[in-house]
Amino acid sequence: MSFSEDNLTGFILALSSSGFIGSSFIIKKKGLRRAAAASGVRAGVGGFSYLFEPLWWLGLITMIVGEVANFVAYAFAPAVLVTPLGALSIIVSAVLAHFILHEKLHQLGILGCVMCIAGSIVIVIHAPQESPITSVQEIWSMGTQPAFLLYVGSVIVLVFIMIFHCVPRWGHTNVLIFTGICSLMGSLSVMSVKALGTALKLTFEGNNQLIYPETWFFMLVVAICVITQMNYLNKALDTFNTAIVSPIYFVMFTSLTIIASVIMFKDWDDQSGANIISEICGFIIVISGTILLHTTKDFERSSSFKGGYASLSPTLSPVSPTLSTRLCNGNGESMDHDQENVPPSEEVCFRRQEMY
Amino acid sequence: MSFSEDNLTGFILALSSSGFIGSSFIIKKKGLRRAAAASGVRAGVGGFSYLFEPLWWLGLITMIVGEVANFVAYAFAPAVLVTPLGALSIIVSAVLAHFILHEKLHQLGILGCVMCIAGSIVIVIHAPQESPITSVQEIWSMGTQPAFLLYVGSVIVLVFIMIFHCVPRWGHTNVLIFTGICSLMGSLSVMSVKALGTALKLTFEGNNQLIYPETWFFMLVVAICVITQMNYLNKALDTFNTAIVSPIYFVMFTSLTIIASVIMFKDWDDQSGANIISEICGFIIVISGTILLHTTKDFERSSSFKGGYASLSPTLSPVSPTLSTRLCNGNGESMDHDQENVPPSEEVCFRRQEMY
Repeated sequence: MSFSEDNLTGFILALSSSGFIGSSFIIKKKGLRRAAAASGVRAGVGGFSYLFEPLWWLGLITMIVGEVANFVAYAFAPAVLVTPLGALSIIVSAVLAHFILHEKLHQLGILGCVMCIAGSIVIVIHAPQESPITSVQEIWSMGTQPAFLLYVGSVIVLVFIMIFHCVPRWGHTNVLIFTGICSLMGSLSVMSVKALGTALKLTFEGNNQLIYPETWFFMLVVAICVITQMNYLNKALDTFNTAIVSPIYFVMFTSLTIIASVIMFKDWDDQSGANIISEICGFIIVISGTILLHTTKDFERSSSFKGGYASLSPTLSPVSPTLSTRLCNGNGESMDHDQENVPPSEEVCFRRQEMY
Repeated sequence: MSFSEDNLTGFILALSSSGFIGSSFIIKKKGLRRAAAASGVRAGVGGFSYLFEPLWWLGLITMIVGEVANFVAYAFAPAVLVTPLGALSIIVSAVLAHFILHEKLHQLGILGCVMCIAGSIVIVIHAPQESPITSVQEIWSMGTQPAFLLYVGSVIVLVFIMIFHCVPRWGHTNVLIFTGICSLMGSLSVMSVKALGTALKLTFEGNNQLIYPETWFFMLVVAICVITQMNYLNKALDTFNTAIVSPIYFVMFTSLTIIASVIMFKDWDDQSGANIISEICGFIIVISGTILLHTTKDFERSSSFKGGYASLSPTLSPVSPTLSTRLCNGNGESMDHDQENVPPSEEVCFRRQEMY
């Protein structure tokens, strides 16, 4: 538990980011409900009355604050620490939804929350120290080391193969194609966001990095990666059920980001085998908890308020997989897929089935 | 991961114990099925034809071997390591049931298995070293230190209050009364089993401990604790659904055993805060995985083969909570409670509900 000050800052930022993002959903949903009650038209079926609802705007601002905190967290702590903590935002929104929106949390959902928290604690305890970075050139040299260039090269080749070969053939039948493209690009997004964030952090500390072309290059990479990622995430969510896409995307995104970070920032080089194994177990536990929460949350929520997260720009959230699937899912149409796979009668049966 | 040789022996014994116990269920069930097919009468409705089925006897022997391995494991490794690994027997039987008996494992059940394994790895990595014990008097002095005597005193007082005050009033309405008595006595069972096991281990090593009255005293304590524990476990299983009793009992038993072990053997005295927190997280994860597996296993199994674990002496398994609830649940009658809470029609609905 020898936590460096930077790690602690990053950890607190990541935690508060999850708090903001998690509660933003609740605030916005309350705003949307109020707007729907006032106008009689729901966002999912084309209403725009929520734009006149201050609560909705408060929710949007809360979410932007959370996203910024998440972005800044990457500048302080390793991605191996920050990325999995994103799962806590689901817990915050699930717990708040239970108490404020009275969307009853499934008993197995509570178990999922407990797992996410326990797994996060294991990750935090075993998180690596990051060696302090003093200039953007240092990141540049990390990003151009052979091992990481090999990773970037493989990702680009894979993404091209998937876009031009796999998408036309299996894109609309196999959920792994679109989510795979998103996750591969997502891992590059996080790395470039981390590079850019560190450069901006140094600039704010008085060590101007904007004079170096590397900073601008990273900015370009962020833009390209995020746009590609968001484009294919939209396609994934338009084609498949959110309940399928969300957990698969979270698992692949988190895993690839950690692999990328371990290669580029050598997070695990100074760590003992026991630490690394504990961290991997922590990831697996957080991922399992997220899947459990997603699976059981959908049983409860499916009919309560469709299209609730409407009309948010999907490009807002490149680095928080739990958020971005929700953001992109706001056009009302794609939500209809929720019902395709699960006939309503069986859903009711499930909800009536008590666990004990 | 600096594992002492004794810890490693205990770990391997605990692992193989879970393997034996887990597979014994499958072997016995195959034997019972074969016997039922041959005679047309099932054990749950009073048949005894399984006694002529060699497979059933093989299963019984496998289970006894597993129980002995579990008993011996306590002589080598701390209870903090051995007790939670008992959860792995559920995984072994669930996985084998999936492949051999074709009882389809629920998707969330697979998640439960993954969690149990990940949690166990975290526990094993952070397990404390036990200082070597050279005589039964040493254990005696540990057992008579003020802190542990206070624990034993509180347990005895609590158990008496529960038996004479709570059982007549709420014993048949509140599941925590009977399982509480079992778990409190169970923690003392494990401590005395560990004392006795260590004494026998020393005796086999040529350092005869049977000449000391302490050894015989521990034997008496084992007998009293185990009989009380099994008596109330039978009552709990006769009164309540197995699906309720098993996870609650596992959680309370494991937690109290760990508390008792930490007080008596000072398992955590030489450990860092990070290690202790990691261990606690590991327990929570294993417990969550067990609950998940128990909950979802019941959905699948409920109608497939009731009363399958019939006619085993319940006193065989004092120290393995996952086993003993199954053992005690062999009289056919108590299994009927399974259906009281879950109308069959809803159960079918649940099984048809696909996760993704």
